[in-house]
Amino acid sequence: MRLLLLFSSLFITYSLTAQDFYKEQRARWLQMAEQTTPVLTETIRKPKGIVSMVKDAAAYQGWKAVPIHPIDSLYTGSFKKKSGIIVDFGEHLTGHFSFSLEDIRGVADAPLRFKFTFAEVPAEAVTPFDPYEGALSRAWLQDEIITVTEVPATITIPRRLAFRYVKIEWLGGSRYSDFRFSAIGVKATTSVKSIPAALPAGTDSLIAKIDQVGLTTLKECMQTVYEDGPKRDRRLWIGDLYLEALANTYSFKNHDLTKHSLYLLAALANEKGYLNGNVFERPTPHAQANVLFDYALLYNVAVKDYFIATGDKATAMDLWEVVKKQTEIPKAYLQADGMLDYARAGKEWWLFFDWREGLDKQAALHGVVIYAYQQTYELARLLGKEKEVADLPALITSLSNAAKKNLYDRKTKVVVSGKDKQVSYASQAWMILSGVLNAKEGAAALQALTTTSEVVYPGAPYLYHYVIEAMIKCGMQKEARELLTSYWGGMVSKGADTFWEVYDPKNDFLSPYNSYVVNSYCHAWSCTPVYFIRKYPEVFQK
Amino acid sequence: MRLLLLFSSLFITYSLTAQDFYKEQRARWLQMAEQTTPVLTETIRKPKGIVSMVKDAAAYQGWKAVPIHPIDSLYTGSFKKKSGIIVDFGEHLTGHFSFSLEDIRGVADAPLRFKFTFAEVPAEAVTPFDPYEGALSRAWLQDEIITVTEVPATITIPRRLAFRYVKIEWLGGSRYSDFRFSAIGVKATTSVKSIPAALPAGTDSLIAKIDQVGLTTLKECMQTVYEDGPKRDRRLWIGDLYLEALANTYSFKNHDLTKHSLYLLAALANEKGYLNGNVFERPTPHAQANVLFDYALLYNVAVKDYFIATGDKATAMDLWEVVKKQTEIPKAYLQADGMLDYARAGKEWWLFFDWREGLDKQAALHGVVIYAYQQTYELARLLGKEKEVADLPALITSLSNAAKKNLYDRKTKVVVSGKDKQVSYASQAWMILSGVLNAKEGAAALQALTTTSEVVYPGAPYLYHYVIEAMIKCGMQKEARELLTSYWGGMVSKGADTFWEVYDPKNDFLSPYNSYVVNSYCHAWSCTPVYFIRKYPEVFQK
Repeated sequence: MRLLLLFSSLFITYSLTAQDFYKEQRARWLQMAEQTTPVLTETIRKPKGIVSMVKDAAAYQGWKAVPIHPIDSLYTGSFKKKSGIIVDFGEHLTGHFSFSLEDIRGVADAPLRFKFTFAEVPAEAVTPFDPYEGALSRAWLQDEIITVTEVPATITIPRRLAFRYVKIEWLGGSRYSDFRFSAIGVKATTSVKSIPAALPAGTDSLIAKIDQVGLTTLKECMQTVYEDGPKRDRRLWIGDLYLEALANTYSFKNHDLTKHSLYLLAALANEKGYLNGNVFERPTPHAQANVLFDYALLYNVAVKDYFIATGDKATAMDLWEVVKKQTEIPKAYLQADGMLDYARAGKEWWLFFDWREGLDKQAALHGVVIYAYQQTYELARLLGKEKEVADLPALITSLSNAAKKNLYDRKTKVVVSGKDKQVSYASQAWMILSGVLNAKEGAAALQALTTTSEVVYPGAPYLYHYVIEAMIKCGMQKEARELLTSYWGGMVSKGADTFWEVYDPKNDFLSPYNSYVVNSYCHAWSCTPVYFIRKYPEVFQK
Repeated sequence: MRLLLLFSSLFITYSLTAQDFYKEQRARWLQMAEQTTPVLTETIRKPKGIVSMVKDAAAYQGWKAVPIHPIDSLYTGSFKKKSGIIVDFGEHLTGHFSFSLEDIRGVADAPLRFKFTFAEVPAEAVTPFDPYEGALSRAWLQDEIITVTEVPATITIPRRLAFRYVKIEWLGGSRYSDFRFSAIGVKATTSVKSIPAALPAGTDSLIAKIDQVGLTTLKECMQTVYEDGPKRDRRLWIGDLYLEALANTYSFKNHDLTKHSLYLLAALANEKGYLNGNVFERPTPHAQANVLFDYALLYNVAVKDYFIATGDKATAMDLWEVVKKQTEIPKAYLQADGMLDYARAGKEWWLFFDWREGLDKQAALHGVVIYAYQQTYELARLLGKEKEVADLPALITSLSNAAKKNLYDRKTKVVVSGKDKQVSYASQAWMILSGVLNAKEGAAALQALTTTSEVVYPGAPYLYHYVIEAMIKCGMQKEARELLTSYWGGMVSKGADTFWEVYDPKNDFLSPYNSYVVNSYCHAWSCTPVYFIRKYPEVFQK
């Protein structure tokens, strides 16, 4: 929440009369984005059964779904006495919900009124939404009140929804007639077009399950852009795009979606040339004017990854201007000692890295700059553009040296961050990924954390991704696998159909928004086990 | 409510294998109904201002609308702090409500959620609808919760609405952006095509105002059928059709709507040949299977009136089979003494006449049979069909004689009804309209009521119509005008824009449905001052 308020204060409005850094390219990039808009695959999905949400202290958030009736029972006889029924589609779906009604006694001589509550997880279906005290819009919660004025009728709720469970409450109708539901269904959408190869027989069953849940998560988030969450936010964030594209490369291989998303972000960069942290495609493409330091730099890595995965040099060349421009962001904060002015950067940009309250981000910021510079230079090399970013190697060196000097505690052998020398997983991970710590140092640092007091742990799956990647880079294959199976496996063992935006094994109710019902339970940045399991078979598939 | 439950018990289901009395005609009648479906006139109406509903013990139902801001203030600046605002369209409208939203700070990074409450009268806009204890569907109440997922947006609420006031509450949105309403409006519909002649200059101002409110009421109820109420019920009832067609003949003269409605009722009569009391046009034409004794007979009067107003003999001849068939209804209850078996008729049919609880309907029933037989025979004469209903004159005579003998108290000079010899306006009115009481006797009876104890007064405008018609028939022009100006003028003085379904000068909260908010405040059967004022200028326009 603190971060959100900071975020709000960072909105920057550009004058229409200001010079547009991309005035030559912007229209073409937007056209490229439009031309690559994915055609969604639509499938009609039907519910699988009726469930009862049962209180269970051992279940995730205290509720579990227990099958109680076959789905046919929904369609048989009067619905009036069934009000409050919870329908289970058996899987997480994203799309448009429809229902049909028929008269079964007399004719509907008055409108019918229903409340539909759509839930990704069991607790969401039975927890009252009001009074709502969350920090994000109450309107994200997926309850819709629908008036049906004519029967028979087939109604499609206009809003796109993301859910597995639907609670149906009857709020009004005539006592002189009766009705039943004759059909319900979802027109489910995704831009996934092909099923990835199955994991080899003999893959550990928990790993296989984590992979499957990760694939579902990614599939659900792959719409006309890489969305962060199909229930909530529903937009293209650079950070989510980066991780989704990684997972996509190792699974669905819908590289056109990556291309589309990269172009959309480029076309909607601000007039200074810096990328906005997130953009929307509808009703017309537009950005939320905000600048997110680490995300802007990760765009460069995503372009490089896209080029390597596809060989699409034309796109990489076309977007090179954007990539090059993002490398300027850190330069404004460079100090004589090779360190970055973290305090000022934090005032002028949103620094994300993780949701964890109290995380000091100095070391992570330093690490992401080095990492992005390395990846950018690698891209430049591949494109023959080294001369345009000729200053990067020296910058990488000086930043790395300064980091080793100022952020690495040679006594305790861990990375420290900020005035209070905070020790965190975020700091270790980014110093490892940037190569400031070599494999041996990195492994020692990560191992030291397990016995260090007051370590700041990751607050969300997004950061766990970087920690696991860092572990693998340090040769900590066993630990990487253990963390993946304990963290994502923890969600699986708690019944996750899709991976959650926020997961703290010790607190099912953690929410960065002061309301766990507004959390997203199918969130792109949690899908990366797909990437790890499939990229590193020797670690995860043995 | 008692009546409603009785009504419910009267549903009759016909087997599909039963012989259909109209098997030769039904399809053609339905086709005629379809061919005459009115094309609605659509006009876009914009709101006139912002009002505050202020508690006022002297105002109708305790609330009055006080203008507080010009309408421009709705569109200026953030809506967030305006939540709860009440918009006044300045007139009663029936149609589809639309609104447009625009970003004014940042971009909408979350859906917006609104509650719109549509009200025909001030109290309806501020009285909580829940918990709802009315006997009719909660869904009639016009509150809609709408989620808007993209901004800018123009949204049309799917449900047709009838209202003057709209309360707009903001239930959810992002704290990181802000928005305004940029437009609201109604696509208002009616099948009225022409404006009737103005009343002569010099017409009493209250009479002129009653006429205007009556015209608005009728105009709002004239949609693709003669609806009873555009907010609630929204269907074609024979009783409402009868009165609306009378008023239409003296005002808008859209006789095609009458023709369309008469055909629709004929096409949807039950298989025995008896008319259903009400029918629906959507989603496909269908009847609510119920038989309403007095309404079925009044259909005959409506056909006769239509023929006289239009000279459309083809339609009258085509519908003659239906008219003739309805005359059989009373014959099943004829007794040797010339009286009708009221108890049995009341068990087998719904007898309406009025909403007043406790009204004994024996005399009214007897009266409506004689009246309908007289009108039917007159129609037969005009069509050259006397031979087909040759028994009617003798029946009229015997029914009239029996009524005079058994239902007229020669001592008190009033009509009495039922075992308890109940004295009511309904009984006097129908005995006068049927001619059982002559003008002198009728006038004496109506005058006697003013000094009789325990008189059952009319419970709704529908019966007031017949009372005024009876007064005029008895030469009580002065009293008719006084009643019209006191009763309908009472509504006008309480601020009615349209005439109400239920009006008791002593009780603003009277409801036949246990909830005054579900009452209809624009109700067809209340529009007949238009008919009286324009048919009898010597009484009302002097």
